[in-house]
Amino acid sequence: MYRVDINSDIGESFGAYKIGMDEEVVKYISSANIACGFHAGDPMVMALTVDRCLKNVVSIGAHPGFPDLLGFGRRNLDASSEEIKNYVIYQIGALQAFAAIRGTKLQHVKAHGALYNMAAVDEKIAMAIAEAIASVDRNLICVGMANTAMERAAEKVGLRFAYEVFADRNINPDGTLVSRKHPNAIIHDEELACKRVLRMVKEGVCEAIDGTLVKVKVDTICVHGDNPQAVEFAKKIRETLEENGVDILPMGEFV
Amino acid sequence: MYRVDINSDIGESFGAYKIGMDEEVVKYISSANIACGFHAGDPMVMALTVDRCLKNVVSIGAHPGFPDLLGFGRRNLDASSEEIKNYVIYQIGALQAFAAIRGTKLQHVKAHGALYNMAAVDEKIAMAIAEAIASVDRNLICVGMANTAMERAAEKVGLRFAYEVFADRNINPDGTLVSRKHPNAIIHDEELACKRVLRMVKEGVCEAIDGTLVKVKVDTICVHGDNPQAVEFAKKIRETLEENGVDILPMGEFV
Amino acid sequence: MYRVDINSDIGESFGAYKIGMDEEVVKYISSANIACGFHAGDPMVMALTVDRCLKNVVSIGAHPGFPDLLGFGRRNLDASSEEIKNYVIYQIGALQAFAAIRGTKLQHVKAHGALYNMAAVDEKIAMAIAEAIASVDRNLICVGMANTAMERAAEKVGLRFAYEVFADRNINPDGTLVSRKHPNAIIHDEELACKRVLRMVKEGVCEAIDGTLVKVKVDTICVHGDNPQAVEFAKKIRETLEENGVDILPMGEFV
Amino acid sequence: MYRVDINSDIGESFGAYKIGMDEEVVKYISSANIACGFHAGDPMVMALTVDRCLKNVVSIGAHPGFPDLLGFGRRNLDASSEEIKNYVIYQIGALQAFAAIRGTKLQHVKAHGALYNMAAVDEKIAMAIAEAIASVDRNLICVGMANTAMERAAEKVGLRFAYEVFADRNINPDGTLVSRKHPNAIIHDEELACKRVLRMVKEGVCEAIDGTLVKVKVDTICVHGDNPQAVEFAKKIRETLEENGVDILPMGEFV
Repeated sequence: MYRVDINSDIGESFGAYKIGMDEEVVKYISSANIACGFHAGDPMVMALTVDRCLKNVVSIGAHPGFPDLLGFGRRNLDASSEEIKNYVIYQIGALQAFAAIRGTKLQHVKAHGALYNMAAVDEKIAMAIAEAIASVDRNLICVGMANTAMERAAEKVGLRFAYEVFADRNINPDGTLVSRKHPNAIIHDEELACKRVLRMVKEGVCEAIDGTLVKVKVDTICVHGDNPQAVEFAKKIRETLEENGVDILPMGEFV
Repeated sequence: MYRVDINSDIGESFGAYKIGMDEEVVKYISSANIACGFHAGDPMVMALTVDRCLKNVVSIGAHPGFPDLLGFGRRNLDASSEEIKNYVIYQIGALQAFAAIRGTKLQHVKAHGALYNMAAVDEKIAMAIAEAIASVDRNLICVGMANTAMERAAEKVGLRFAYEVFADRNINPDGTLVSRKHPNAIIHDEELACKRVLRMVKEGVCEAIDGTLVKVKVDTICVHGDNPQAVEFAKKIRETLEENGVDILPMGEFV
Repeated sequence: MYRVDINSDIGESFGAYKIGMDEEVVKYISSANIACGFHAGDPMVMALTVDRCLKNVVSIGAHPGFPDLLGFGRRNLDASSEEIKNYVIYQIGALQAFAAIRGTKLQHVKAHGALYNMAAVDEKIAMAIAEAIASVDRNLICVGMANTAMERAAEKVGLRFAYEVFADRNINPDGTLVSRKHPNAIIHDEELACKRVLRMVKEGVCEAIDGTLVKVKVDTICVHGDNPQAVEFAKKIRETLEENGVDILPMGEFV
Repeated sequence: MYRVDINSDIGESFGAYKIGMDEEVVKYISSANIACGFHAGDPMVMALTVDRCLKNVVSIGAHPGFPDLLGFGRRNLDASSEEIKNYVIYQIGALQAFAAIRGTKLQHVKAHGALYNMAAVDEKIAMAIAEAIASVDRNLICVGMANTAMERAAEKVGLRFAYEVFADRNINPDGTLVSRKHPNAIIHDEELACKRVLRMVKEGVCEAIDGTLVKVKVDTICVHGDNPQAVEFAKKIRETLEENGVDILPMGEFV
């Protein structure tokens, strides 16, 4: 009766460079955000990653970023709305082709890194991304945080929106993430993090950093696969949820 | 009753760099080979180029090349078949998205530069390209020269194939192009070139460099838009053909 | 008795892409800012450009920019001070090698585009650039506008600083450039622009957009070579200066 | 009385991508070939790598490659001699700057991957590299295999040449490496490999794959740092040599 999606950024290797334990983390997620060759990923990696997802029954989404491989898409770039729109269209299209050759389709789009962060607070950038997604395929789900410019833009253009939460991050009383500059930004206690996630999914609330109970909407939980601990944590989150009666389903089945 | 397509490589600008007189040459062609961001082109240029084609009723095709912007895709690169296949899938997909946002579809795929040349003689590379095209969309037409590995590969995977000729190039008795290293590779006399093209289209023959009459198959004629003379030449070819009862049609309507 | 340098950004072509009328504008300048392969330029272009400068007795400087070829280095990038420092070191070194093979040395360094603009107002970025220059070669002159973070940083690390003005730009009463968003940012009347430049050089003052007379320091005047008009303008500036008793000399001879 | 250099390719990380156990392998080598940003490496990595070498008293050399990050410089690229020459000049210069800021100089240059292999057999490419090195700094040592085009080119332009051997590769009776396509290309027995290396250094001979004793010249031994085994092997080679009276010295001290 309870259900939630678990997503992770994968397919971020490039040429001879391997990054992320994709082959492990795909076992515990239901949706994958696949890099599309701008901030990470390349055609070989994309082909392999789509196959890996299909084999593990993980739904596929595009993870477009800035054209900044050197910065891994993590640095704000002062690109115009028109540029960002076309960058997103391009990257979605490239990944769609790898889905097409396996007879499948993309489920969602989630902006990466600096683009994700900028789209949370900048209406123009958020609209550029939302319009890009809608213009390519109206059925694609847009992934982002609640109460962001991204959410508003998705609504404006008529896209389905999946509410994303982060398992290991503390939140402010207004629901935003505690800044990484703050010492308590990250929750290091995995038990606690799992309990928080479970409560978010089943009760729709989360305790903010000041103790306030905050209403949260949760469609998908973001986990990482950068190292063995991250993968172990992803596994624990999934197990905690399943053991407590929560079904792990791709967001496309319920958003 | 007679009909032929005229194609040109366009959309090769990149960022602040403008190359080609696209806005002029699109008036005289029926099919466009659009660069997809690897050897040339970028998302902004692709969006603009697709719009330009639609405005001028020019059919759209992908023009995938090697990931070598510095060499404009003109340098042989010892990539594996698997790499080439995925490079082509990626580039087709990226352009498909720009067609999709305008409610249209790609008509064809023509490899660019070194990739085109290598695919003419290397069966593995030709198969990689043909398989890439077919796997993404079986309705796409593959463009290449007659009697090449590319033609054989297209046939093998079941793709329609459009026979391409070059208006300004002399041919050997076996139908291959006279090497650019040869002083007579290029036909500089535009009158003569137009007559040759007309004869190829209407009679299916072409005079080789040694005077032999060679049978040729012609679906599409490649013209250039690099400079005012090239555009003028493209215009003259089109006029010559139309004045002599040849309809200029996108290859998709008859191949 | 009066003397000033004239500089221009050249060597911005890339691979098959030609930009700028370098072969013309080098006739009218005394110092060249040469792109180093990050935002523009490539090893072939750098070699050719150094030779072109030497042939025209133009002094050579590095023109480092952000690693953003797609945006021509004109987009702000949120790179760290450490990254910027190393980007500048790298680019200076690359150009130094092309100077070395011709038995010459670099005279100056001028940041490009977004990096230039950011360094004018951001102390950290300005320090990163100044430290990069000084660490590679203390004899290099740093080029920038008066009253900027760049000037202060150059002074702090002990670099010579060349004051740059723009021939075609209006200034505010505080000496800063009128924003390009303002309708009167650019001076289109070439006669007027030449008179202003002459007055800046000989009297050390310039009329601001509100009529105020502003004190200005001028070591080098920036001109462009993007199109025939720009080159014509560069020529006119040089002629006006020379006809009025101003020697055009590389900044290295007097800064 | 016996002495040899041990070299390894390091500094091949890029942005967020880490490759190679540089921090380990630098303990066992006397010379480092540092990637220069074309096939691998970036300005941040180059700065860090130079510092790492200095801290470990390892001599520094440039490791220029093709501009093919996606292929890690391992794919043949049909670049012209002039292009290759300028690519090498550019890359040497970039690394020189990072040496300069630490008050040191480059010791040598060794081409990377496909460029190394092509330069072994193609006289034009070898000459392009040798001329590039000599034009930038005549004191740089050129590293390559004996009896190659690279050796001949270095001699022709008057560069010192360091003879390189590979600890884990079998050789043919003519001294060339057994092709990687051959099942016995690689020597997996580390004991054997160490013994072979020792014999090469002390006796100047090596047993070819058919049992023939071949004369070999050895100035520097190439080891790898890709994984823990490779590093362990590098350590064992160094220990074997030192225990048998061979001094490990940077090539610059004796070539």
